[in-house]
Amino acid sequence: MLEKVDLNRKMGKKEYKTLMDDLQPKLSYLQRACKEAKIPVIVIFEGLGAAGKGTLINHLIEPLDPRGFQVYTTAVETKEERMKPFLWRFWTKIPSKGRIAVFDRSWYRRVLVDRFDGVTSKEQLDYAFEEIASFEKQLTDDGMVLIKFFAHISQKEQKKRLEHLCSDKKTAWRVTKDDLKRNKEYDRYLTMNEEMLERTDFEYAPWNILECTDREYASAKMTEIVVSVLEQALAHHKAEKVKKQEISVEPETQNDAQPGNGINLATSVLAGVDLSKTLEKEEYKKKLAHLQKRLGELHNELYKYRVPVVLAFEGWDAGGKGGAIKRLTQALDPRGYAVHPVASPTEEEKAHHYLWRFWRNFPKDGHISIFDRSWYGRVMVERIEGFCSTEEWKRAYHEINEMEEQLALHGCIVIKFWMHIDKDEQERRFQERQENPAKQWKITEEDWRNRAKWDQYETAVDEMLLRTSTTYAPWVIVEANSKYYARVKVLETVINAIEAKLNDVKKK
Amino acid sequence: MLEKVDLNRKMGKKEYKTLMDDLQPKLSYLQRACKEAKIPVIVIFEGLGAAGKGTLINHLIEPLDPRGFQVYTTAVETKEERMKPFLWRFWTKIPSKGRIAVFDRSWYRRVLVDRFDGVTSKEQLDYAFEEIASFEKQLTDDGMVLIKFFAHISQKEQKKRLEHLCSDKKTAWRVTKDDLKRNKEYDRYLTMNEEMLERTDFEYAPWNILECTDREYASAKMTEIVVSVLEQALAHHKAEKVKKQEISVEPETQNDAQPGNGINLATSVLAGVDLSKTLEKEEYKKKLAHLQKRLGELHNELYKYRVPVVLAFEGWDAGGKGGAIKRLTQALDPRGYAVHPVASPTEEEKAHHYLWRFWRNFPKDGHISIFDRSWYGRVMVERIEGFCSTEEWKRAYHEINEMEEQLALHGCIVIKFWMHIDKDEQERRFQERQENPAKQWKITEEDWRNRAKWDQYETAVDEMLLRTSTTYAPWVIVEANSKYYARVKVLETVINAIEAKLNDVKKK
Repeated sequence: MLEKVDLNRKMGKKEYKTLMDDLQPKLSYLQRACKEAKIPVIVIFEGLGAAGKGTLINHLIEPLDPRGFQVYTTAVETKEERMKPFLWRFWTKIPSKGRIAVFDRSWYRRVLVDRFDGVTSKEQLDYAFEEIASFEKQLTDDGMVLIKFFAHISQKEQKKRLEHLCSDKKTAWRVTKDDLKRNKEYDRYLTMNEEMLERTDFEYAPWNILECTDREYASAKMTEIVVSVLEQALAHHKAEKVKKQEISVEPETQNDAQPGNGINLATSVLAGVDLSKTLEKEEYKKKLAHLQKRLGELHNELYKYRVPVVLAFEGWDAGGKGGAIKRLTQALDPRGYAVHPVASPTEEEKAHHYLWRFWRNFPKDGHISIFDRSWYGRVMVERIEGFCSTEEWKRAYHEINEMEEQLALHGCIVIKFWMHIDKDEQERRFQERQENPAKQWKITEEDWRNRAKWDQYETAVDEMLLRTSTTYAPWVIVEANSKYYARVKVLETVINAIEAKLNDVKKK
Repeated sequence: MLEKVDLNRKMGKKEYKTLMDDLQPKLSYLQRACKEAKIPVIVIFEGLGAAGKGTLINHLIEPLDPRGFQVYTTAVETKEERMKPFLWRFWTKIPSKGRIAVFDRSWYRRVLVDRFDGVTSKEQLDYAFEEIASFEKQLTDDGMVLIKFFAHISQKEQKKRLEHLCSDKKTAWRVTKDDLKRNKEYDRYLTMNEEMLERTDFEYAPWNILECTDREYASAKMTEIVVSVLEQALAHHKAEKVKKQEISVEPETQNDAQPGNGINLATSVLAGVDLSKTLEKEEYKKKLAHLQKRLGELHNELYKYRVPVVLAFEGWDAGGKGGAIKRLTQALDPRGYAVHPVASPTEEEKAHHYLWRFWRNFPKDGHISIFDRSWYGRVMVERIEGFCSTEEWKRAYHEINEMEEQLALHGCIVIKFWMHIDKDEQERRFQERQENPAKQWKITEEDWRNRAKWDQYETAVDEMLLRTSTTYAPWVIVEANSKYYARVKVLETVINAIEAKLNDVKKK
């Protein structure tokens, strides 16, 4: 998840000022409205060292009435705190109804910094994740609004900032030996953060990633999210009151559009993808032959060691899913794989849970199931076309992660490919299909209709890639403007994953 | 939980017939109504061997249209099934909307029989509990009605039935060696069942205990529960349609009363309690002196080994909480304990999550917190007086279990006492208080009002004792008609728990 985030997002000073001039008075109003409505709010800031959590908190509280909030800094447990259950110090700090509590680091400290520093034992770690989940569920069930921010910067940027801090006596004390160690071992620490995000991204308390390379961008995005979440909470509160007939007006229609006054503040994966990657025909042919031979050999080993594989293909229309799948299956023994094209659900499928039809088609040990489109329809087409409710698609991220984790725990290799092309390339391919009689069947009215919703899809895809790329079932983004490049990347990815898995299995 | 259930519940043949003549046509109607409303239903039967699951299933399906349901028997995994993730064989069998699936043993097999038989590994066990929780959440979130029954009999009754089966050639084949082993090691197997019930009793899929000593009673109760749950599901479905303005009638008021046409079918703990237990004054004095001395010594050890203790006292008004607490504290060093009397929440407490005020008062390591009344007010007085919503008190069982588990994981001893007297004894004590000027302050109008709601409280208490008595934080029911007996039992229980814990701690 984190390594996929585009950290180059920026915002001009002027744009920033315009946006903040709009948002800060709103925030100020919202604090009063939440107090009135007796809604308690917790905002927590986690993330990498030197990402700028302090600055973010300053920007958050600037427009707030100081009588209505409190900021807590979570350091390592004191001797007194260690003598109580881990969550005691947070339970005792939860805000009363109508107040705001801001945490600079929070209960996540135990599974992040304290884990890295060896303060948290393996046993404590497992309990901690369960206890955090139940804590956040209990609070939000009771009406708490819980906003979770993760401040993210690159290793290089972090190093630069730490060096800058160290270079000045006035700030050098702020940098600890452990900060430097976490920078040096950035990847190892990032993996802990990944695991934390995977295990605690709940629909009732989702994580928000802040790209903190540019401080203006990060502050604007943070403020925008707080404003938007509080607005939703108030709208929900009002709707509940209407339901209970305490007030008699109609509930407002919820605004599900992107926030930000037209400025796109959503965390993006796709924006950072380099689509110029390409491959010459000659090299493609050579590589293809070599890779397919290798895949064929591995297929036998998969069977021998009883390792199942699930490959899911998603991507833009005309992104090259079919071609990539073909280059895979050409190399496989037909008795050992099945391709499942996923279309609109049948009546029988509609009469079941949306995951049922996929469960039916998961491979048995030693076999490969390839899905041409998949369960991710729930958070793309079903979301965009309104085939399911907002509640349903928001819940789906977690449901899908749970399902894929179960596959992985069973021993299955799970990889999801996003075949990525840009809008121009899609148009070229659509035109080509329409002009080529042999390919006309591949293009329909619906493809053009979907194309018109490109921006909506991009938002949905970005959120999907972020919330469902996990260590046990990663998303692989395939730069597919070049078909040759794309097919080779898919083959290489599959081969690498199988080789790694077989190595593990043989060790046991 | 299970060892507390009163297994002597019985029902006369005539009573049974009257009840079933009423319930079975209802069930038949409800099946059609659920089909109409497209509500899918799963009913699962788990429990001890020879408890009569087969007979229960026969009674369930008797009034049903055979085109609308299917019965599945869950045996040990086949070779084919082992080659898929554990839940695959259940996902593929979930009913489509409007149909009913009945499982004779289910996904719980993995954490019960298969665990006992050593088929399930330690690692698989942990995953299985998580996967079961997510499976049931995903299904019920999607609108599945999931009814879970646990068929319970005593070791003695089970032995009798197994012997009876073995004595006849026609039925002997049904008894396996493992069945006999589970009877012999009844307590060990029961503990596995206890753990399963603790970890999977969710508000969205609660367990129903069937006392199976008497077959009529068990069948009647099972049918009554199915009827009542389906009626609720239909009412909810109708209310949702009203909300969406698909239909325009008022939703029916939900019937939250006890089912069963006046016959009490609720699982009872209290009904089985022997209140005749008593203790002579002389013996009491001797024991008291001895026990208090021992407790005093242990208090020092608690401090030395940094073991915290939480004792919660609940019980009928005039049940003797105060007296029992006094006999404890007399023996304790005042620097090492605190008594927290729990009254109606203050304004500040009301402005927080209901558990907040208890979290604030948990002891630090080495100290003892004694609660005179406790967080269980949520599922007693708040439930009965309507101070919280049905949804809230139903959720509370799980929330409270989570909180107590966190205390236990931190190393805390957690014991809850229910001071139990009968209605006559309460009246005697109330009268005595009213007539004795020194005790008049102890009795108020409210006590009499509560007494008038005895039956409602009894229902709530029975459910509370069942759903929140756990291996890590057991309920101890104190037979308190005799104050001497009660005080000694409390002291002995606390001493035994501390000794056991200190033994554990010293081993480490």
